[in-house]
Amino acid sequence: MIKQPLKYIKIFATGGTFDKEFNEINGELYFKETNLFKLLELGRSKIDVKIETLMMIDSLKMTDRERLYILEKCKKEKTNQIIITHGTDTMVNTAKVVANEIKDKIIIFTGAMIPIKFGSSDGLFNLGSALSFSQVLDPGVYITMNGKYFHWDNVQKNKKLGIFEKIN
Amino acid sequence: MIKQPLKYIKIFATGGTFDKEFNEINGELYFKETNLFKLLELGRSKIDVKIETLMMIDSLKMTDRERLYILEKCKKEKTNQIIITHGTDTMVNTAKVVANEIKDKIIIFTGAMIPIKFGSSDGLFNLGSALSFSQVLDPGVYITMNGKYFHWDNVQKNKKLGIFEKIN
Amino acid sequence: MIKQPLKYIKIFATGGTFDKEFNEINGELYFKETNLFKLLELGRSKIDVKIETLMMIDSLKMTDRERLYILEKCKKEKTNQIIITHGTDTMVNTAKVVANEIKDKIIIFTGAMIPIKFGSSDGLFNLGSALSFSQVLDPGVYITMNGKYFHWDNVQKNKKLGIFEKIN
Amino acid sequence: MIKQPLKYIKIFATGGTFDKEFNEINGELYFKETNLFKLLELGRSKIDVKIETLMMIDSLKMTDRERLYILEKCKKEKTNQIIITHGTDTMVNTAKVVANEIKDKIIIFTGAMIPIKFGSSDGLFNLGSALSFSQVLDPGVYITMNGKYFHWDNVQKNKKLGIFEKIN
Repeated sequence: MIKQPLKYIKIFATGGTFDKEFNEINGELYFKETNLFKLLELGRSKIDVKIETLMMIDSLKMTDRERLYILEKCKKEKTNQIIITHGTDTMVNTAKVVANEIKDKIIIFTGAMIPIKFGSSDGLFNLGSALSFSQVLDPGVYITMNGKYFHWDNVQKNKKLGIFEKIN
Repeated sequence: MIKQPLKYIKIFATGGTFDKEFNEINGELYFKETNLFKLLELGRSKIDVKIETLMMIDSLKMTDRERLYILEKCKKEKTNQIIITHGTDTMVNTAKVVANEIKDKIIIFTGAMIPIKFGSSDGLFNLGSALSFSQVLDPGVYITMNGKYFHWDNVQKNKKLGIFEKIN
Repeated sequence: MIKQPLKYIKIFATGGTFDKEFNEINGELYFKETNLFKLLELGRSKIDVKIETLMMIDSLKMTDRERLYILEKCKKEKTNQIIITHGTDTMVNTAKVVANEIKDKIIIFTGAMIPIKFGSSDGLFNLGSALSFSQVLDPGVYITMNGKYFHWDNVQKNKKLGIFEKIN
Repeated sequence: MIKQPLKYIKIFATGGTFDKEFNEINGELYFKETNLFKLLELGRSKIDVKIETLMMIDSLKMTDRERLYILEKCKKEKTNQIIITHGTDTMVNTAKVVANEIKDKIIIFTGAMIPIKFGSSDGLFNLGSALSFSQVLDPGVYITMNGKYFHWDNVQKNKKLGIFEKIN
């Protein structure tokens, strides 16, 4: 295991189911602000983490413009441990854009199948998982879901089952 | 990073705050059964996991007898990835007993500061963290709490703050 | 206070925010089945209650057809204490249809601003409230929300604030 | 039904399971402060309510001294609608002390079998119930639990089942 120089872990929030909330005025799901701060407090996390919200959108509405912005932010980021919370539908697409240009950082995409604000969310589990993998994996771009980590180029979302799985 | 031959991960439940429940008849905290199954379902975990309850006790009530039983179970266990849920107060003591005899397995102790059944529990976060570390760390005995992993011989519980921290 | 002959309380579920769930496959809100059984268990309710699901729809999609069906079911119901869980947007409209024809029963409409399955739902509070009012109010058609009861012909939903209030 | 002059409803918090919290430093249940404000917010209650904490104790530790203090506070209270959150074990005893001296107010005792801070608490349901009954019952001293109201002199806690029931 190659020990990474532990400085801090950067978390970029981009939206997705993870941060969806229920708007009680119109009865629709919407984005307010990231729930990451609350989750880290809930997990009693003592990891040195910096959180930055890049956008708050559905990953199905993400275009090249947003992906290039995420890439740009990852490039400029000084720490080499980055977690990106992202909608699961196009998580792999964004991972590809990032992986094509960045080779020397640990970049982990994670998200949730159920919004944090629901009682039955998987978000806290996934965040604990992503934070842990970000401390010990080799540089590369990964997806962390369902308790596992996947290399960005060997994973797909099984949309029928709602889980991530290896391609080969 | 040394890749472990992924078979399955064994989780031994021993009790601790993690699995404490509220007895509505007498108003006291007690143990019923482990909440690990529900947590893995909540996390949508697709890891191959086998759960076994060894005991359901407060770690302050744990004696050498229980620690030797845990050690014995770890020795006999065929997989080399083991997670042990354990009360936080004497987690380090049990880790020491196990570490003195087992060198070739990844054994991770974890627990919770707040019971799973409370709304504000850190258990789901810690479980996501422990499962992740168990897949990538080198053989050894570790404690996983607060989003971090610690080698068993360089960690202590700070009882004032309720967190785990390095000794040196 | 006129004491009603306590037989049982009938609850008709019709859908609304109260019973909305999150579909983790497509990320949309949908109806599965009513959460009333679980809520009554959670409340440790010992009231003699019979639950019947009449429909599971958004109240904005409710037409005269559904309202007449609800009216019909209320007419045929043998007990004189009826609670109807209903979307808040057109709750008053349905109450009017029922009130125009039924004078001798206590009929209480209630619902929720936040789905039961969200951590921050008002559904359990409203159900406790509706069940209580149904045991002591005089015959009539009422709306129970925000801890209050309103006569059907003197209440409106304030859609900006998301609360129910008297007209006069 | 006698309509009470609606001014405000006073809620006296005295402790009990309702307000028990989990102390993550020593692993024991304790009292911090009442959760009533949060519960009323959760229920989107628009009732005019004033909350006052009289004490934060287990009802099994309550003595005549505390009961007389509660009685005194009820006597001096200007509104005639009072709710008292109280441990369930001796709720009936305190109700008797209050009922012996106060005849012209609606005084409702309620509580919870499971602390508010647990995911599975009945507290929100009971509060919705107590608030509702307090608006419509005749003057008297009552206990509201399990969705029902009971006159103070015809109710007992069934300690085996953990429910309240009529004596006759």
